[in-house]
Amino acid sequence: MELKNILKDLLEGRLDIDEATSKVMSFGYIPVMDIAKADTHRIHRTGYPEAILAEGKTPQDTLAIVRSHLESCGRALITRVSDSHLEYLNENFSSELVDWHPRARSYIVSTGKEIKKTGSKIGIISGGTADIGVAEEAYVVAREMGCDVLKAYDVGVAGIHRLYPEISKLKQNNVKAVVVAAGREGTLPAVVSGLIDVPVIGLPVSTGYGAGGNGEAALLSMLQSCSIIAVVNIDAGFVAGAIAARIANIAVEP
Amino acid sequence: MELKNILKDLLEGRLDIDEATSKVMSFGYIPVMDIAKADTHRIHRTGYPEAILAEGKTPQDTLAIVRSHLESCGRALITRVSDSHLEYLNENFSSELVDWHPRARSYIVSTGKEIKKTGSKIGIISGGTADIGVAEEAYVVAREMGCDVLKAYDVGVAGIHRLYPEISKLKQNNVKAVVVAAGREGTLPAVVSGLIDVPVIGLPVSTGYGAGGNGEAALLSMLQSCSIIAVVNIDAGFVAGAIAARIANIAVEP
Amino acid sequence: MELKNILKDLLEGRLDIDEATSKVMSFGYIPVMDIAKADTHRIHRTGYPEAILAEGKTPQDTLAIVRSHLESCGRALITRVSDSHLEYLNENFSSELVDWHPRARSYIVSTGKEIKKTGSKIGIISGGTADIGVAEEAYVVAREMGCDVLKAYDVGVAGIHRLYPEISKLKQNNVKAVVVAAGREGTLPAVVSGLIDVPVIGLPVSTGYGAGGNGEAALLSMLQSCSIIAVVNIDAGFVAGAIAARIANIAVEP
Amino acid sequence: MELKNILKDLLEGRLDIDEATSKVMSFGYIPVMDIAKADTHRIHRTGYPEAILAEGKTPQDTLAIVRSHLESCGRALITRVSDSHLEYLNENFSSELVDWHPRARSYIVSTGKEIKKTGSKIGIISGGTADIGVAEEAYVVAREMGCDVLKAYDVGVAGIHRLYPEISKLKQNNVKAVVVAAGREGTLPAVVSGLIDVPVIGLPVSTGYGAGGNGEAALLSMLQSCSIIAVVNIDAGFVAGAIAARIANIAVEP
Amino acid sequence: MELKNILKDLLEGRLDIDEATSKVMSFGYIPVMDIAKADTHRIHRTGYPEAILAEGKTPQDTLAIVRSHLESCGRALITRVSDSHLEYLNENFSSELVDWHPRARSYIVSTGKEIKKTGSKIGIISGGTADIGVAEEAYVVAREMGCDVLKAYDVGVAGIHRLYPEISKLKQNNVKAVVVAAGREGTLPAVVSGLIDVPVIGLPVSTGYGAGGNGEAALLSMLQSCSIIAVVNIDAGFVAGAIAARIANIAVEP
Amino acid sequence: MELKNILKDLLEGRLDIDEATSKVMSFGYIPVMDIAKADTHRIHRTGYPEAILAEGKTPQDTLAIVRSHLESCGRALITRVSDSHLEYLNENFSSELVDWHPRARSYIVSTGKEIKKTGSKIGIISGGTADIGVAEEAYVVAREMGCDVLKAYDVGVAGIHRLYPEISKLKQNNVKAVVVAAGREGTLPAVVSGLIDVPVIGLPVSTGYGAGGNGEAALLSMLQSCSIIAVVNIDAGFVAGAIAARIANIAVEP
Amino acid sequence: MELKNILKDLLEGRLDIDEATSKVMSFGYIPVMDIAKADTHRIHRTGYPEAILAEGKTPQDTLAIVRSHLESCGRALITRVSDSHLEYLNENFSSELVDWHPRARSYIVSTGKEIKKTGSKIGIISGGTADIGVAEEAYVVAREMGCDVLKAYDVGVAGIHRLYPEISKLKQNNVKAVVVAAGREGTLPAVVSGLIDVPVIGLPVSTGYGAGGNGEAALLSMLQSCSIIAVVNIDAGFVAGAIAARIANIAVEP
Amino acid sequence: MELKNILKDLLEGRLDIDEATSKVMSFGYIPVMDIAKADTHRIHRTGYPEAILAEGKTPQDTLAIVRSHLESCGRALITRVSDSHLEYLNENFSSELVDWHPRARSYIVSTGKEIKKTGSKIGIISGGTADIGVAEEAYVVAREMGCDVLKAYDVGVAGIHRLYPEISKLKQNNVKAVVVAAGREGTLPAVVSGLIDVPVIGLPVSTGYGAGGNGEAALLSMLQSCSIIAVVNIDAGFVAGAIAARIANIAVEP
Repeated sequence: MELKNILKDLLEGRLDIDEATSKVMSFGYIPVMDIAKADTHRIHRTGYPEAILAEGKTPQDTLAIVRSHLESCGRALITRVSDSHLEYLNENFSSELVDWHPRARSYIVSTGKEIKKTGSKIGIISGGTADIGVAEEAYVVAREMGCDVLKAYDVGVAGIHRLYPEISKLKQNNVKAVVVAAGREGTLPAVVSGLIDVPVIGLPVSTGYGAGGNGEAALLSMLQSCSIIAVVNIDAGFVAGAIAARIANIAVEP
Repeated sequence: MELKNILKDLLEGRLDIDEATSKVMSFGYIPVMDIAKADTHRIHRTGYPEAILAEGKTPQDTLAIVRSHLESCGRALITRVSDSHLEYLNENFSSELVDWHPRARSYIVSTGKEIKKTGSKIGIISGGTADIGVAEEAYVVAREMGCDVLKAYDVGVAGIHRLYPEISKLKQNNVKAVVVAAGREGTLPAVVSGLIDVPVIGLPVSTGYGAGGNGEAALLSMLQSCSIIAVVNIDAGFVAGAIAARIANIAVEP
Repeated sequence: MELKNILKDLLEGRLDIDEATSKVMSFGYIPVMDIAKADTHRIHRTGYPEAILAEGKTPQDTLAIVRSHLESCGRALITRVSDSHLEYLNENFSSELVDWHPRARSYIVSTGKEIKKTGSKIGIISGGTADIGVAEEAYVVAREMGCDVLKAYDVGVAGIHRLYPEISKLKQNNVKAVVVAAGREGTLPAVVSGLIDVPVIGLPVSTGYGAGGNGEAALLSMLQSCSIIAVVNIDAGFVAGAIAARIANIAVEP
Repeated sequence: MELKNILKDLLEGRLDIDEATSKVMSFGYIPVMDIAKADTHRIHRTGYPEAILAEGKTPQDTLAIVRSHLESCGRALITRVSDSHLEYLNENFSSELVDWHPRARSYIVSTGKEIKKTGSKIGIISGGTADIGVAEEAYVVAREMGCDVLKAYDVGVAGIHRLYPEISKLKQNNVKAVVVAAGREGTLPAVVSGLIDVPVIGLPVSTGYGAGGNGEAALLSMLQSCSIIAVVNIDAGFVAGAIAARIANIAVEP
Repeated sequence: MELKNILKDLLEGRLDIDEATSKVMSFGYIPVMDIAKADTHRIHRTGYPEAILAEGKTPQDTLAIVRSHLESCGRALITRVSDSHLEYLNENFSSELVDWHPRARSYIVSTGKEIKKTGSKIGIISGGTADIGVAEEAYVVAREMGCDVLKAYDVGVAGIHRLYPEISKLKQNNVKAVVVAAGREGTLPAVVSGLIDVPVIGLPVSTGYGAGGNGEAALLSMLQSCSIIAVVNIDAGFVAGAIAARIANIAVEP
Repeated sequence: MELKNILKDLLEGRLDIDEATSKVMSFGYIPVMDIAKADTHRIHRTGYPEAILAEGKTPQDTLAIVRSHLESCGRALITRVSDSHLEYLNENFSSELVDWHPRARSYIVSTGKEIKKTGSKIGIISGGTADIGVAEEAYVVAREMGCDVLKAYDVGVAGIHRLYPEISKLKQNNVKAVVVAAGREGTLPAVVSGLIDVPVIGLPVSTGYGAGGNGEAALLSMLQSCSIIAVVNIDAGFVAGAIAARIANIAVEP
Repeated sequence: MELKNILKDLLEGRLDIDEATSKVMSFGYIPVMDIAKADTHRIHRTGYPEAILAEGKTPQDTLAIVRSHLESCGRALITRVSDSHLEYLNENFSSELVDWHPRARSYIVSTGKEIKKTGSKIGIISGGTADIGVAEEAYVVAREMGCDVLKAYDVGVAGIHRLYPEISKLKQNNVKAVVVAAGREGTLPAVVSGLIDVPVIGLPVSTGYGAGGNGEAALLSMLQSCSIIAVVNIDAGFVAGAIAARIANIAVEP
Repeated sequence: MELKNILKDLLEGRLDIDEATSKVMSFGYIPVMDIAKADTHRIHRTGYPEAILAEGKTPQDTLAIVRSHLESCGRALITRVSDSHLEYLNENFSSELVDWHPRARSYIVSTGKEIKKTGSKIGIISGGTADIGVAEEAYVVAREMGCDVLKAYDVGVAGIHRLYPEISKLKQNNVKAVVVAAGREGTLPAVVSGLIDVPVIGLPVSTGYGAGGNGEAALLSMLQSCSIIAVVNIDAGFVAGAIAARIANIAVEP
């Protein structure tokens, strides 16, 4: 327990009262900081990695944050990477350090540190081609969290024809959570939730048109579902993947 | 594998072709039924119990459904129970069979069958008195699913003063998921998510007033959160409790 | 051709010019009248009966309109009938003339004229007890239009367990259209539309809660559906039943 | 009945138990597949053709799906075709196989199989030039379904001046359903519905400006209409055309 | 010119500088006061009478304001009068001074002063029984403003059958503006606007149900109309009647 | 009365029965046509000119419609003219026939026929530079309708400093109606309405940002106003100008 | 500095290490507690008093919280007090301890401790009678915070006639902030903001009707205002009064 | 008092009655002008400077307004400056007169007149890089108003880690108000409000995605906050900065 250590240091003279006060002040507030912005140790405390959202940052600022992550963690995950971010990052990192996921627009740099596999497994299901980018974002973060991911959208053009075999495969592989991405009317998560006995994370995707388009009908439909589904925001692939991986990791932790 | 058994029965003469056809027909479609309305075996297939929503049903219809559940399962959980439902049910079941949760408006009847404890634990946190009814609905369903539930809202008037000790207690008890109910601006789930490393289910509650009232600001705020939270619909205590219990149960299953 | 007849009557002296002008005036505008309010001959011209919406009318006004319908048509259909309307109407019509549908809140009076059966059939499906009132409104109007109606919601508490047998029954009976009433997330019409080859009318029902409640999620979900569904407004049982019956009647007309 | 055939094949030794299990598995789930994505046999089971939505797909993926359709059906209908899709498709199919509808942005390829005329007829009415693209989408799908289509929007600049003669023409041609596309305040379907005795499908179009623009006022106005109209989503020309054609085809089926 | 008079009074010694300053202060701001709340001279300056909105006021406060109006104007118009307001007002004014319009919930008291007829005429049209209360509010205010009002909704149950004769009557009477009240899809004002060459004021009424109910579809439909209509808020009968009367009065002013 | 003339022609042998039927058919429906789309005689019957909305039409179609207008009326007004429309129109009409209003994006072509001045006057007020385009659209149509227009927005950068003098000028000129364009919070019409005794038409403009932006706050604020204002849709300059001119023309008609 | 005192107590043996850890734990988190629920020392740290919201609490719970406040502070402020709360509180406190504000539905109990006047002043302005309850809530809290409050709504029925004299009075009294409550179109705060040089807090009130009713138009109009206004939620009288008082108190603090 | 001076001038013959009337007319209305558009003396009367919003103005118009400001005030502040505005302004002012804030898109020109420091201080806090532009707009206006501004967002990539030290710094510097900019779920202002005893202005920023994106969730969350916050519109950096500076200036005024 770190707080006790500070107090011991005070008692045993390694800190004077002002130094101890200052240390406690910043110590005491660390949990609060997480409310708004997790630090680089976040994965150790909450189980979630810190992603760097490139959107809205200059390539230069992005690079600086990436470098700071690499120093402290050895790995950095950057999401919503535009072409200009990509180009700038590629100029600054040699390609063997980089793992680029174009459909997820996610960029990973590692300087030595490998992902530590947890032994857990999740499934990610998506029926339509328009949902794949968002689903891939879920995949990337879950993999960073040490999960093995079984994907059911790489079946490509054939689509949902293989839903049932894929559900069977997920069951046989003993996945502990499933992310289901769906746009339009968003009913796929409810279907999957009725076929498998692990938690289902509904991930609405900003497709659709007219009334209820841009993922709104999908979100409302998932929130209203008579099946048991947990939901994340429209296009929140990162959140869905992280939640699912956290569920799966907990299931394999001692 | 049950389907194979039907086919074997056919091959070995225990079923004729019409009987087998009929059995396969209903077998094949059982998963689909869950889309709209789970059957009484639902808990065995999806891990979720079937609740009977009293709202919108006559007391007589409700009783009929409860009786059907009791016959097949030995237990029935009825939610959103009005005073007139309550009175009618109480006239029909002797009080020793009944477990009535007034704040959750939830009614449980059991004819012999006890809840089978899974050994899993979840936490349910709620700061304000207005959130307790919805939080209790989560508690009731999670308990039905065999979870032990640690509640942090029974602290009553003292409120969130004990959030940190309660979080510590949840950690020490090794809960595997936490439901956090919140109305108004709905920030409590994000705070909790930064302090504990198990999945947090945000449960928006229909409090608040003016713009964003009735839980709307709480829901949007949870969906937009920079913390990692899974969300359910406004006042969906049942869904939140069920998801959290499912996560916890998975974590203790072999 | 009626207009020609008026002109002939003019030419042949049975009408003078002022009488003919007046007759043409009202004749010419009859189609326009339908825009806002159909007249008592509406069923002959558009195929739809005229219902008297009791909601928003005094019992006295309602009775007056009913009497006017009875004189011209021999039958009158009154919808959204409150208890005070009901009491007042019952005081004014002897019970053998009356056909009261309590769940549909629909009241039919006939003074001799029977429904003329068209020989067509439609199906009406509803999964939950909360949807039955709206579905019954669809049933009443379709029956008035001469259709036989197969209902799949009278299965009562057992619910959708019998969807597939009911679909089979609808197919065997050669129904020509199906109304599917659904609240909450509103996915049932899409499921039915995938199982039967006649037009499906999605009828969203004002159930649900929180975000997307009051039928909003159901409506949006039906509008966004990847299945082929025609939709009517939330709780518009009358419109859904009338459309379905019109489709079925057309199919059996020579 | 196909399921019985599988069971017979099993009984009579043409399939072993594993093969039969597998066949039943995929058979049993075929209806379910339609929930999310219809297969290439969809037109035989539900009466609707499968369209390939190009929007959101790469030209390469689109081509692959088109090829798969052509192999199984001999025809493929591609909707929402952008210029880059068009160019790519034209490079891959010789022009004599192609039927391109520029206003509908719809592309049809056929390798030998002709549309099988059903003998049914529908009408499509549109008043404004802004509605024609959406109306044409309805036309293309209805034609693919074997309907003859009478269009009342090719009257071009003269507009609604010819509504009454066109209605007369529709009646004389014995159309069995009418699609009416309308933007802005969306009143045209109600007018048509008062003038003709076949089902009217209201198709709101995303025109308009300010409050209620983008088709919202048109959709709400159609849903609220005192006339009897079935409605589809804003700009859902495909759905409107398919529903209307299905109604018409049913009317001519024996 | 009143300001000049104050200055003259100053110059000629009837006011000292402080009195003149004070008089100019309140004078100068009189126009501004109208922004929020018109005074009892409002009808002389803007042409509109001041109505006393009873809703949200205690009967006692309402009476006090009424008395203040009577003193200065000799007449008072009170709108949105509840039963308890009505009872209280009736206790305080003898019946011969009172003109009570029950459907408009409007109450007029006059102590001698008669309405001064301007010689102008407007029409008020309403098709359905649900719209009459709002239409009557328009009638009452227009009459207070000296207009003769031709009503086309007192045709009662017969409804719009007499729209064309009524339009003719309005034309023959040379009305200068028409208020058209409509709920549901709100198309009546557009129809009327196409049939008469005076300004039409669309008055949406809070009828309807489901999506677009409570007058929302009617309002949006009127705002989007291709016809030329000016619109007021939902149920704003007072505003519609006042605008129409102002237009008509201007037309007859020299 | 034209209908009587047709009947007389029939009686007196100038028309046979088929010709008369046909003439009555089209005669009877002319009023209906106005519902959706006014014809070229519209200005004579309703007092409003027909504008050609270029938006959503190809330049070629636009030109065709313009030519048809010119033939029947001698003048054509085209609104929402894009640069490509402009270029195409300019290639087809010699500049002396053209009157181009760049801020209003409105284009007028006349082949001989001049605007017939009615002698009426209206005012158009706009405070900000962002509102001028919409206000100019109102100006152009009012001028076409024969009104003289006093503009208070050409004061340019100095803005509302001259509101009071401008109001005085409007009063001195005896304008009969005022259009007030306003974006953001949209309070200007209410201010003006308190200062002048002629009808005020509130014209919300799609300026503003964040919550209530795009004219929404302005529209709602005008609808809620305690002052007496008639409102048109956001950016509906054409409608506002036409209504105001109609009011003014009525006031000067005998 | 309290933290230092704990550390001193540890150093000087008045606390052992476990006691000090525990004390620091709860101390360190006190600031965080304020996020969700302020404690009884809140007024000393943030300058705002803690109000007890009665709405949603049982009278018994409310009383318990009030008693706890009285013990620690000597005063308690209870808001949104229903009649049943009121009755119960009155039974438990002798009337001389109680200060009941019926229009604000606010209840103050004090056991000896007086409000400490800060010497600051604010103004509260409200034009309509419907706004007074909300304005009074602002008054009560500001008074609790030691401000003198000048009210401009107690002018009663005469209303805004005295806005300018009242503004003058506010200026002469040197108020440091003004709360302006307004419903309907919500323009009053913008008017006041242009007349006085202290911060104006716009307080939208849930009046109005139809589109933008319930305070929505007022809120949007204030957010869009071209004047400089800070805004609080609809009906948030407590927040508005507290902010204004805080501004005024800061201005008089040394 | 200026009005008195005009009257004196009249009394003492320096003005005749017409001149005095005219002077009083314009004098009396100056306050009213502020409703819509403040004049160049605005800062002296309301304490707020007049900013020139470049958005929606041509560069030429913008320049003209800037020149007019410079003549009367010696300084001009231009906001929402696009690249084309920037280029045009830079061509017209020599660089030593210009102070360009690229992140705030704000441009200041001064011809001699310096900002007059008031001695007051405010803080501006922003956590994320996406909020900086809006926060800088607040900074620029506060500085123009003579405030010293302590910024807590220039900590750059390190983000909120330094919130507590920064709060301490703000306290030590005795700031009198704090602007807190936040997007997404918008909780930062509530956190800050619990840690400091000066008024907090919540400034929602149009970040976020999916449901509640574009600042909507942030705005609603701030309006619903249990902490005491005053709010401005989404992205209204100018308003937030001006309010905060006004509060601070009042606190230092004698």
